Amino acid sequence: MSEPTLDILGIGNAIVDVLARADDDFLVTHGLDKGGMRLVDAGEADKLYGVMGPGVESSGGSAGNTCAVAAALGAKVGFLGKVADDQLGRVFAHDIRAAGVHFPTAPLDGEAAAATPTARCLILVTPDAQRTMNTFLGACVTFSAADVDPDEVARAKVVYLEGYLFDPPAAQEAFFEASDAAHAAGRLVALSLSDAFCVERHRAAFRRFLREETDILFANESEILSLYQTDDFETAATLVRQDVGMAALTRGEKGSVVIAGEERHEIAAVPTEVVDTTGAGDAYAAGFLAALTQKLPLVDCGRWGAIAAAEVISHFGARPLANLKALVAVPENPLLGNPPVASVLG
Amino acid sequence: MSEPTLDILGIGNAIVDVLARADDDFLVTHGLDKGGMRLVDAGEADKLYGVMGPGVESSGGSAGNTCAVAAALGAKVGFLGKVADDQLGRVFAHDIRAAGVHFPTAPLDGEAAAATPTARCLILVTPDAQRTMNTFLGACVTFSAADVDPDEVARAKVVYLEGYLFDPPAAQEAFFEASDAAHAAGRLVALSLSDAFCVERHRAAFRRFLREETDILFANESEILSLYQTDDFETAATLVRQDVGMAALTRGEKGSVVIAGEERHEIAAVPTEVVDTTGAGDAYAAGFLAALTQKLPLVDCGRWGAIAAAEVISHFGARPLANLKALVAVPENPLLGNPPVASVLG
Repeated sequence: MSEPTLDILGIGNAIVDVLARADDDFLVTHGLDKGGMRLVDAGEADKLYGVMGPGVESSGGSAGNTCAVAAALGAKVGFLGKVADDQLGRVFAHDIRAAGVHFPTAPLDGEAAAATPTARCLILVTPDAQRTMNTFLGACVTFSAADVDPDEVARAKVVYLEGYLFDPPAAQEAFFEASDAAHAAGRLVALSLSDAFCVERHRAAFRRFLREETDILFANESEILSLYQTDDFETAATLVRQDVGMAALTRGEKGSVVIAGEERHEIAAVPTEVVDTTGAGDAYAAGFLAALTQKLPLVDCGRWGAIAAAEVISHFGARPLANLKALVAVPENPLLGNPPVASVLG
Repeated sequence: MSEPTLDILGIGNAIVDVLARADDDFLVTHGLDKGGMRLVDAGEADKLYGVMGPGVESSGGSAGNTCAVAAALGAKVGFLGKVADDQLGRVFAHDIRAAGVHFPTAPLDGEAAAATPTARCLILVTPDAQRTMNTFLGACVTFSAADVDPDEVARAKVVYLEGYLFDPPAAQEAFFEASDAAHAAGRLVALSLSDAFCVERHRAAFRRFLREETDILFANESEILSLYQTDDFETAATLVRQDVGMAALTRGEKGSVVIAGEERHEIAAVPTEVVDTTGAGDAYAAGFLAALTQKLPLVDCGRWGAIAAAEVISHFGARPLANLKALVAVPENPLLGNPPVASVLG
């Protein structure tokens, strides 16, 4: 077996975010559930875009964000995901490559691109810093097992799969293709549950994939409670230990819990002023995996996750602005001063 | 003569900004002059985009920014400018309309749109908060006198023209078309010099337009020095008084000077942490005109300009994030506390 040349290969929906501020009344008027991600078709997306405020566009996508953050932390990273050959697709491809991420997936072109343009996510950020996401999947629905090159997967220590990929049907097959290729090459498979509503939509498939294919699970509190249909976090934590070798469960301002066999670590959140929680969970997973693939202890993996998440929620948008390598390198980082109080990891 | 139904009608290049951070070495390596705006063709734009860092897209354009800021201050505003019917064109149109601005110009469509897509400006923001702009004009080169509806111009108290419009040749005619229509309807014509290099390119045309057509001039220090080919600000201030009825000259952290006939007011800059100077001058003009069209005294016009500029330079991007109406409404605004120290109005 050859040595891996990548630390992380992310697979996910390739999406450009459109972020706008909105008040709570706007969510109520338009029937939007705060904090969730819902899928919309082209018509609904146009209608919502027509009534929302001025936007800022930046590359997003859950695994895409994770890849960009992990690369900023020094990890060697690749990403597979489908854009169309249009202006937003070129924006996505530019940004992820400019972040230092290897991105080999061919864009959809010709008439197919016109019919299914690059995906976008209309994100409404309320004054409480919560984000409410409305995703038009566009070209992402054409991502399939054919886009998963087993050689690319075998190159990476960890293949990281976002749960949102369970939504476009062809991509579910790609999940299994990727995990088979990873395990055949002796690599690890990491899964993010992405969203409580997404878990609701695909619970049985998630539980099967978790037990049979997953080595490392990322989930926030509402996602893990939804997966096990319980309202008690400790019950969920006990159940997840039986299903997967390693789980990192984020709990917002309460920090995160890392469970691996008999080990259990509680890691404090990093205090910061919360401006926009978009991408918090993605950044946590990036920090965790960037540290893990450097063989750092689990407590440090959780700490890197907490630092990366704190950076991303301290400003508008899901991709990092600060020098993340510097933030994790300094043990006496001012962000880590006492008391390690309120922060939000979504 | 009927009453005007708009306060301000802006005419300018309709551009989507792509903002990315860069260090000084990057500017040197790629031969870029810090602080300026240069025009690039499609090939140069692609090449620069290929090497610059991850970007954030937001609607821009000098007059477009001014219109968005003025609308945020409560002015009734319209904008004329040319986008193509493509993804970035739809972003521009959405954002300016969502800001409350009337935007009637038809987009370029069909094959013309494919050949000349929506304009974009690649903006590199260095650690000193300076912005260096590289503009691909795209569809803007097709904006012509035919796009200036004299009835739209007659509807507004002030027509506001950005100097950058002297670059695409067909638009120069549109300038005269607009100023003729404005004066025929008894309205005012405001001009922004936009950029010292732009003044350099079109000095004779600017001086003629200033003397013959302009009622209100906006310029920063380097632009007004370039216009009069002097290195002494007071010399330029004396000359401009002979050429135009009213001039607002911005001097970065030194504040601004407003000259109108025998009146002269010096207005302090509003202190703020400077993150990105993109749009500082556009925001100053917006504040000034929003106050002027409410018949506020000239000192208040300058004060509104300074407050709007301070808001825009305190964050990434040229469009406002804070509630500008609230900022100008409070005379004892904390931003206006003593001492009124360093700020930057570009």
